[in-house]
Amino acid sequence: MLVDAAPLDSIRHLIGQMPAASDEAAAAARARQAELTKPQGSLGRLEEIAAFLASWQGKLAPTLDRPLVAVFAANHGVVAKGVSAYPPSVTRAMMQNFSAGGAAINQICGAFGVGLKVFELALDIPTKDITEEPAMEAAETAATFAFGMEAIDGGVDLLCVGEMGIGNTTIAAAIFYALYGGSAADWVGRGTGVEDEALARKIAAVETAVALHRPFLSDPLEVMRRLGGREIAAMAGAIVAARMQNIPVVLDGYVVCAAAAILHALDKNALDHCLAGHLSAEGAHGEVLRRLGKVPLLDLGMRLGEGSGAALAVGLIKAAVACHTGMATFAEAQVAGKVADGAKI
Amino acid sequence: MLVDAAPLDSIRHLIGQMPAASDEAAAAARARQAELTKPQGSLGRLEEIAAFLASWQGKLAPTLDRPLVAVFAANHGVVAKGVSAYPPSVTRAMMQNFSAGGAAINQICGAFGVGLKVFELALDIPTKDITEEPAMEAAETAATFAFGMEAIDGGVDLLCVGEMGIGNTTIAAAIFYALYGGSAADWVGRGTGVEDEALARKIAAVETAVALHRPFLSDPLEVMRRLGGREIAAMAGAIVAARMQNIPVVLDGYVVCAAAAILHALDKNALDHCLAGHLSAEGAHGEVLRRLGKVPLLDLGMRLGEGSGAALAVGLIKAAVACHTGMATFAEAQVAGKVADGAKI
Repeated sequence: MLVDAAPLDSIRHLIGQMPAASDEAAAAARARQAELTKPQGSLGRLEEIAAFLASWQGKLAPTLDRPLVAVFAANHGVVAKGVSAYPPSVTRAMMQNFSAGGAAINQICGAFGVGLKVFELALDIPTKDITEEPAMEAAETAATFAFGMEAIDGGVDLLCVGEMGIGNTTIAAAIFYALYGGSAADWVGRGTGVEDEALARKIAAVETAVALHRPFLSDPLEVMRRLGGREIAAMAGAIVAARMQNIPVVLDGYVVCAAAAILHALDKNALDHCLAGHLSAEGAHGEVLRRLGKVPLLDLGMRLGEGSGAALAVGLIKAAVACHTGMATFAEAQVAGKVADGAKI
Repeated sequence: MLVDAAPLDSIRHLIGQMPAASDEAAAAARARQAELTKPQGSLGRLEEIAAFLASWQGKLAPTLDRPLVAVFAANHGVVAKGVSAYPPSVTRAMMQNFSAGGAAINQICGAFGVGLKVFELALDIPTKDITEEPAMEAAETAATFAFGMEAIDGGVDLLCVGEMGIGNTTIAAAIFYALYGGSAADWVGRGTGVEDEALARKIAAVETAVALHRPFLSDPLEVMRRLGGREIAAMAGAIVAARMQNIPVVLDGYVVCAAAAILHALDKNALDHCLAGHLSAEGAHGEVLRRLGKVPLLDLGMRLGEGSGAALAVGLIKAAVACHTGMATFAEAQVAGKVADGAKI
């Protein structure tokens, strides 16, 4: 079971070098918010979002000129264990649906003017069945992480991370079980809609996989290599690349958070540049977000993946940026400010 | 205290004639949702929204070509009791800010392509101080309700109701206290940001007003006339007019829900064509929504008014309509459907 750890150490090294936010830009954004024609704090999380974007973009006025949804797609050997309600051919079929503009994520991106890029990760060669052996070799894991990093170019000013892959809620559940403990059933949801026997098989697969790899799972990068699919590694790379390029990130649901959780386990500040787009109806997503320290922007009972919850949250972010940059100040609009507390008028 | 009840009875008559939704359109929309390239139910409330719009627009494919935010503005005699953190001149100053495009609602409407109309309701003649006399005469109440009805023309396919009016969270609190009981403090929030003595004055004003008018408050239309401001009556009219014209409505926050609550008290089905845009951070909005039977689409700690929470929800509704009308079906995209439950693949 010995592997060459060097490729994974390059990831560890990178995570140690992640830049921090600009406190100056955040303070300037908050100061501007206090001047805008509204009672202070009355835009709630829209005000926080504006300051968050400013701090990570390092700009006094955050922009949302080129938001991007990056969807990473992969197939999984564990599907052979009967853990999904859909056949693995659906992963590739959905690639064509994305290309033709027929998927949910196409419509949501269209509604908010968000770019969409889909990255296929060797769909015809599923990762190994995690109930029997590690999903990936170390070099393959590192290369996939690097591929995810390269997918993000500097023109993007907001990155939404999404995924597609029949079987990947099983993968995500295994990762959470490995990282957070409890029982396998705590982390297994219905995915695309498994019930009864298929759900039991899914729980059993997660249990078997984590038991098999247990001796190596104290290292989050081994969790990623042994249990993770290629989309998990690529999404982790994309999240890190965004950080390196001052691009704030919106996380999607359960599977995306498995990639995020790997990074968080390596460094608890690794996700500081990330917003949780929504609370997914899948499995224990709320529990995952609690552990990641994220309060989701939306809670609409969605559980589709594709980056759909993150893309939907871009609507809110768009409004937050528009308010921050477009509103008049009290002085500009010649609106009277608050009267002294306690004064009758 | 005798008044001519006839003008208010015309409102009562109208509410008795409100049309129902099209069950046929809702069923057709749900059938289409089941055919789209996603696991069934995986778009959560976006699927419900699509069926809701279809049922109230009476169309198999709901549209969102002309969404409108209608903001009704008024001033309130009770402000003389020192219940607000801002002077009443701010109501008119904000009208200019709306016209100049500098308010939050301008930015949110701009972000989602939503039209904005602002209706001033005699700002220079505040309604009477509700702690001393009824806010309005019956004829004035009915005329203002009718004005609100006329504000909505048939080309609109989604109506967001909003308001602006220094002092109107006091008015809303008095209405909720009158309708729902409890204590005045249960319903009084901080509005634009009152604290300490001003908050105590606000609670006292609500208490005094409701005690004064108590003998007449078993009739919701008397609640509206005696405690309500003009924007309350106009918004109630707009909500009813939308129903009559098959236009679904998005309610904004605390003050808008006071108008909605009057209608709901008259007829518990009066708000069936309404979505709750968001949960406001103002006062007991959550408790109000629970009584109205509405689950808010957003919960972002906003408490600005202007229709801002409702307009923000239009982003979600836009995405819901885009998914419903733009997604490919499994057959169109040649994506395999769900395998038989329990089958291994």
